[in-house]
Amino acid sequence: MPFDDVKGMQIALEEAKKGYAEGGVPIGGALIHEDGTIYGRGHNMRFQKGSATLHGEISTLENAGRLKGSIYKDCTMYTTLSPCMMCSGACLMYGVKRVVLGENENFMGAEEWLKANNVEVVNLNSQECKDIMSKFIKERPEDWFEDIGK
Amino acid sequence: MPFDDVKGMQIALEEAKKGYAEGGVPIGGALIHEDGTIYGRGHNMRFQKGSATLHGEISTLENAGRLKGSIYKDCTMYTTLSPCMMCSGACLMYGVKRVVLGENENFMGAEEWLKANNVEVVNLNSQECKDIMSKFIKERPEDWFEDIGK
Repeated sequence: MPFDDVKGMQIALEEAKKGYAEGGVPIGGALIHEDGTIYGRGHNMRFQKGSATLHGEISTLENAGRLKGSIYKDCTMYTTLSPCMMCSGACLMYGVKRVVLGENENFMGAEEWLKANNVEVVNLNSQECKDIMSKFIKERPEDWFEDIGK
Repeated sequence: MPFDDVKGMQIALEEAKKGYAEGGVPIGGALIHEDGTIYGRGHNMRFQKGSATLHGEISTLENAGRLKGSIYKDCTMYTTLSPCMMCSGACLMYGVKRVVLGENENFMGAEEWLKANNVEVVNLNSQECKDIMSKFIKERPEDWFEDIGK
């Protein structure tokens, strides 16, 4: 049975909450195999590490470490927010099978590009994901713009 | 006067050579403003740091650190090898103006996607870049496949 998407998103959301508590951008992710193995989880580290590349999904892939290429092909990337072009590109480069996102109202990423490359994209339309992100954007708009290169 | 592309590639190639000397994947990059400021330089760190995301260009962006979004818009990303989907996506997310690559014979990245998004893409067709990469691929094919998620 495939891993439950609601459970997967719960892990990503826990990561987003950790990020917020640390003073960071509250976007979290989890890389989970269809057999239930959680290969990685992580959250945006721009402010915690002064990082320009550790978005939630990149952080998740980085925490997963070096994996055989075949593993990614049966994994889902859970992310609390629609993935930007860098993070979508990372999923495509590794051939991640599915991308499940919490919401795309606060930011619309490269979902169409993922779909065009045969990645299954599911939007869980989560109110909790929307709330934590919209709270951050309202509190720290300049920090949010920096994170997406605006 | 714009920064000289041959000089920019020389810096990226120096980085690739450092990577090779460290036992890593020999792909290097440099992020250089049109006023000549070198904001970042770096090389692939898969083997040196056990990293799944520090490709040459990501490493370069990471080493550049947090920058205002406006800076990227006047920068060129120099990279010794055609940038993969993750690295191309990173350039697009930040709005890097130009991508100058050393070669695309050993690997063809997402050049068309960059061009479709109005990034100027220049291929310097460098024999030195081709040589260091083909040498690595010949010596360590499995390590190369891992780096591109194969």
